[in-house]
Amino acid sequence: MADVQKYVGLDVGGTTMKAAVVDDHGTAFPAISLPTEPERGAEAGLETMVVGIRQAVKSAGLTLDDIAAVGVATPGLMDIKRGLILDPPNLKPWRNVEVPKHIQAKIGKPVAFQNDANAAAFGEYWVGAGRDVDSFVLFTLGTGVGGGIVIGDSVLEGEYSHGGELGHLRIALPTEGRLCGCGRRGCLEAYASATGVIGRTREEVPAYRGATVLKDLLEEKGEAVEAKDVFDAAAAGDALAAKIVDDTAYYLALGACSAIATVDPRMIAFGGGMIAAGESFLQAIKSYILRFGLDYPAKQVLIQYAQLGSDAGFIGAAGCARKMIQSRKS
Amino acid sequence: MADVQKYVGLDVGGTTMKAAVVDDHGTAFPAISLPTEPERGAEAGLETMVVGIRQAVKSAGLTLDDIAAVGVATPGLMDIKRGLILDPPNLKPWRNVEVPKHIQAKIGKPVAFQNDANAAAFGEYWVGAGRDVDSFVLFTLGTGVGGGIVIGDSVLEGEYSHGGELGHLRIALPTEGRLCGCGRRGCLEAYASATGVIGRTREEVPAYRGATVLKDLLEEKGEAVEAKDVFDAAAAGDALAAKIVDDTAYYLALGACSAIATVDPRMIAFGGGMIAAGESFLQAIKSYILRFGLDYPAKQVLIQYAQLGSDAGFIGAAGCARKMIQSRKS
Repeated sequence: MADVQKYVGLDVGGTTMKAAVVDDHGTAFPAISLPTEPERGAEAGLETMVVGIRQAVKSAGLTLDDIAAVGVATPGLMDIKRGLILDPPNLKPWRNVEVPKHIQAKIGKPVAFQNDANAAAFGEYWVGAGRDVDSFVLFTLGTGVGGGIVIGDSVLEGEYSHGGELGHLRIALPTEGRLCGCGRRGCLEAYASATGVIGRTREEVPAYRGATVLKDLLEEKGEAVEAKDVFDAAAAGDALAAKIVDDTAYYLALGACSAIATVDPRMIAFGGGMIAAGESFLQAIKSYILRFGLDYPAKQVLIQYAQLGSDAGFIGAAGCARKMIQSRKS
Repeated sequence: MADVQKYVGLDVGGTTMKAAVVDDHGTAFPAISLPTEPERGAEAGLETMVVGIRQAVKSAGLTLDDIAAVGVATPGLMDIKRGLILDPPNLKPWRNVEVPKHIQAKIGKPVAFQNDANAAAFGEYWVGAGRDVDSFVLFTLGTGVGGGIVIGDSVLEGEYSHGGELGHLRIALPTEGRLCGCGRRGCLEAYASATGVIGRTREEVPAYRGATVLKDLLEEKGEAVEAKDVFDAAAAGDALAAKIVDDTAYYLALGACSAIATVDPRMIAFGGGMIAAGESFLQAIKSYILRFGLDYPAKQVLIQYAQLGSDAGFIGAAGCARKMIQSRKS
């Protein structure tokens, strides 16, 4: 046991932050959650991060002396190399916050810093869906579409911390494409995010001639309707919902085809809420990749669901801390 | 001088192969050219490669004893890791040819093997447009659109040797996109290759109400019309030609935006025939990247023309040989 090092991984989201101790094998001790409350400002947020790290250590029955390093993952906009949160829309009003420097000063341990979607990709690559492959792309499906790319044990961070921003792969011309949250038309996220699924549902229902439960659903739930409702309706046999879900697989596959034409990874995994759609959704993505991707890699690339759920972020953050320590040794 | 090693770079194209000795500084001795004549079969082709390498050494006033290693670049389809040409459309009827193994046996030197567009990207990264940056993406504009990605001194080869196949980045939905040479609709190459430029010209001329020299050009030259003719007409002030050229910049920028959302490089360079279009074409690409790319990286990414012309392939192949030797040493 003396050889097994331990790390704390902290994943800071716009609503909640999660932290846990993770060991060298990627096994996580019980995780703790705290509200992020970004509106209280960066100083309060940094303090919550420190509290979260300490709580995670305590709930593992350990002390900080048992911890080799800490990994912190935050949402963009950020400058990974300089260890800086810039101006993340999910953490308003935080600006230009030196997160790793602050945590290091307070905790007294080396701190690795990573984008949250990159950290999730690294977690899946380390001990999740991608644990047996050397090159790995993760699409994370949520309100938006995030992503992360890991090649040969390194996160593809990019020069400006925008590597693996796969929600903004372009899949349609600006003249014809759907409007994305980023203000441009034609990004993958405009089609395949939860927001995109609901938007397409609102457009398709009025024009649909057949019977569909989605009509009542939109009337009853109004603004509260979720992508999950559409996926549930599809699973229950609703034809229009099934079409909308299948279209989602199609759009995701188009994004995956561009990931193949750039990175050409061994595995592309899909994580986030929509993976509850099950095996048929994954098979639909696969079949569209075969149809619209470069033949040779499309036939061979592995298509899977992510396996770590919402733990991927803190596990990956801990994995980044571990990698940092190991590369210092070698 | 004793410390400056020398390499042979060989770039095998469908029509011609070029080879030259290149030293540690990336300086090339005079290059030689030989016809590839793929129709004569792989055995004859391999023999020509060996002859080309020997001629390059001789024309540099050297002997094979002066050469540390050889780099060979060939067009896809290939398996870079296994050192195998698979079934390249430009080298029919070659199939499953162990190029580096054969060259190594005949020349008696270590042989590096790389895809031709990747080699060109590595050449530009080493001593061309990208010599001062750490992450670099090259789009090569010709009959098709090729590409290569170099991050931190490594070519992004991909798991199935399809890394940096940037001509097949998707920019339009399959339902709306132009037909690509790969048989699918919506790839960048269908729009921005020389073939795509001519195709768009043929479509736009009949519908154009104004005066344009392109009309006469199409009638006079028929099938022989080239993308260069359209670019020349634009440079001479033809309004429709200028629109077609500007659209080309727009489509290339859309592809570049997806390269930013995956790789997020320090520099994106454009090489091949169209770079004769000059500074205004490059500026047009830049302005579309600013409009359709992720704000933060789009503002900072360097956009340039490639600098090595058709020498990039053999210089890059030599650079790959050099890198192989150096990593064996370290």
